Amino acid sequence: MVLVHSQPPLPIAPSGDSEGVDASVDGTRNGAGRRDGCLTLRLRGVHAAAECVARVAWRLYGPADAPCVAVLGGISADRQVAGECGWWNGQTRDGAALDVERWRILSFDWIDADDLEAPAVETTDQASVLAGVLDALGITRLHALVGSSYGAMVGLAFAAAHPRKVDRLIAIAGAHRAHPQASALRAIQRSIVRLAGTHGDSGTGLALARQLAMIGYRSPREIGKRFASAPVIGVDGVRVASQDWMEEAGRRFTRHFSPRRFISLSESIDLHRVDPTLVRVPTTLIGFNTDQLVPVADLCALQAGMGARCELHVLDSDYGHDAFLKEHSAIAHVLEVALRESA
Amino acid sequence: MVLVHSQPPLPIAPSGDSEGVDASVDGTRNGAGRRDGCLTLRLRGVHAAAECVARVAWRLYGPADAPCVAVLGGISADRQVAGECGWWNGQTRDGAALDVERWRILSFDWIDADDLEAPAVETTDQASVLAGVLDALGITRLHALVGSSYGAMVGLAFAAAHPRKVDRLIAIAGAHRAHPQASALRAIQRSIVRLAGTHGDSGTGLALARQLAMIGYRSPREIGKRFASAPVIGVDGVRVASQDWMEEAGRRFTRHFSPRRFISLSESIDLHRVDPTLVRVPTTLIGFNTDQLVPVADLCALQAGMGARCELHVLDSDYGHDAFLKEHSAIAHVLEVALRESA
Repeated sequence: MVLVHSQPPLPIAPSGDSEGVDASVDGTRNGAGRRDGCLTLRLRGVHAAAECVARVAWRLYGPADAPCVAVLGGISADRQVAGECGWWNGQTRDGAALDVERWRILSFDWIDADDLEAPAVETTDQASVLAGVLDALGITRLHALVGSSYGAMVGLAFAAAHPRKVDRLIAIAGAHRAHPQASALRAIQRSIVRLAGTHGDSGTGLALARQLAMIGYRSPREIGKRFASAPVIGVDGVRVASQDWMEEAGRRFTRHFSPRRFISLSESIDLHRVDPTLVRVPTTLIGFNTDQLVPVADLCALQAGMGARCELHVLDSDYGHDAFLKEHSAIAHVLEVALRESA
Repeated sequence: MVLVHSQPPLPIAPSGDSEGVDASVDGTRNGAGRRDGCLTLRLRGVHAAAECVARVAWRLYGPADAPCVAVLGGISADRQVAGECGWWNGQTRDGAALDVERWRILSFDWIDADDLEAPAVETTDQASVLAGVLDALGITRLHALVGSSYGAMVGLAFAAAHPRKVDRLIAIAGAHRAHPQASALRAIQRSIVRLAGTHGDSGTGLALARQLAMIGYRSPREIGKRFASAPVIGVDGVRVASQDWMEEAGRRFTRHFSPRRFISLSESIDLHRVDPTLVRVPTTLIGFNTDQLVPVADLCALQAGMGARCELHVLDSDYGHDAFLKEHSAIAHVLEVALRESA
């Protein structure tokens, strides 16, 4: 893969918050610098017939002389890591473990199968993109890669393929494979989108698929506490206590995600397979005891099979898989130690 | 509610097996008698505006002088409990805990909201139907009611409303309420059917909803063991290892279930609420440690709140909620003791 040329930044899609604010207005904070850019990379996807030219939007936060940490999130995350509309403001704000005044934080927008002109995109393709971005920016080696959810999977793929480009990996709520139960639920989500799409209504399908995704992201413990009240019988049938919340989450998602991109990144999770023995970068794994998508048993298997030193921290949370977006202080505690450690 | 009149039996819908064999050909076995009948009951549903006349198909197996046990299953079960096409042949066959030569086994086909001319059907409505069937058949008191899944919910509603009509309740994989997590997943299933229905394709929607239901019925442990192989990329995108199995289950379901009936009975589960203190019949609860729909914690709460003697047996199984259809010998062991006990 080679860098073709660099371009002005791509606009950021409206963020996931309920107001649909365009997050690109979120400017420099507390004097910490922020640079956006767009690279055109020539690369060939794992499942592509030929090399293609793909545009990749990246963002750098923080002082140019600080150690660089790549921060990657879930499939619906983007390069907007920090700031009020950033998906990980809790970990990147003033005084936090990844404070953008203390660290140079790099992220990028996921590519999808359409970008690769391929039938599917793999986590190793995203890893290739990250390697290309690092090369283009002249960053020889990351102090750390911190990946959550899909970003953790990409982090494992990156550590396996580019061990000399990263000193340490911190993988949160992601393992070396997708669990078959979670894959089954994602396959159903994709079938919902496709069923609606055959009737020209893929947006409605996407919203409904997102509802199902939300139930997987959270935990029975949280849903049980929040939505214990009795259902009501309305004009459109029985409505359960969680239904308003689910439907709002579904609608919000369709404002910044296309059905095709959703299917592509959802499939990418299910295609993810990394041989743990090939991960030869010191690694810290963080899991959540209520995570329905990434069971702790899979993290134990990953830890046991790893080709490098690997710590596993299992945190208690009500929030299931989404604990990576919620349990800021418990995660920060692990992050601070892991980022300090000698590689 | 009063009995209006008795009628010849209704035909049984094709059973759930893959050949779609009409189960009504399953005749008398080993000399054990079998009687089918259809009652017309005048009753008013909990949510109905007025009394209506509903037809109820019932079945009796076994010797007329044996103690009578009502056996009720999940929402897709019917009065065909025993025989090769029966949904609980494992517990009712020769020598089993509910051998139809040793016990008089009563069951009936669930009514739905359309039968009640009501916006919804409650488990207490099904309990009223059972009471009406008992009255019509001259059965003063059941030796036991054995209910599984939805049948367990109906059993609890029956014990609360008609304590003098039953000596003991055995409730398998059912609690006094639906868990909010399971309700959320059922609400999504209904939304899938309705979304497809708005495009005139509710059958496809029903099949897809059933796929989602299946993942809830089983357990991550079973799915993880059975479907661990890698996905494949086909012409219609990524197919995960469980997908053929899920799709076949979905297709099969649509052969004997209508979208309207599915929505009605699915809603009935979510509407179910029984105050445990009102259940004053000696009860044996059976739960499964991997049941995603009926968590053991809910059974513990039910046991603690019960208004009568109540035992809870938690069985280990790979099969989640569907363990009631799979763990015949472990269930039989509990059933035999419970059916023998003095009331």
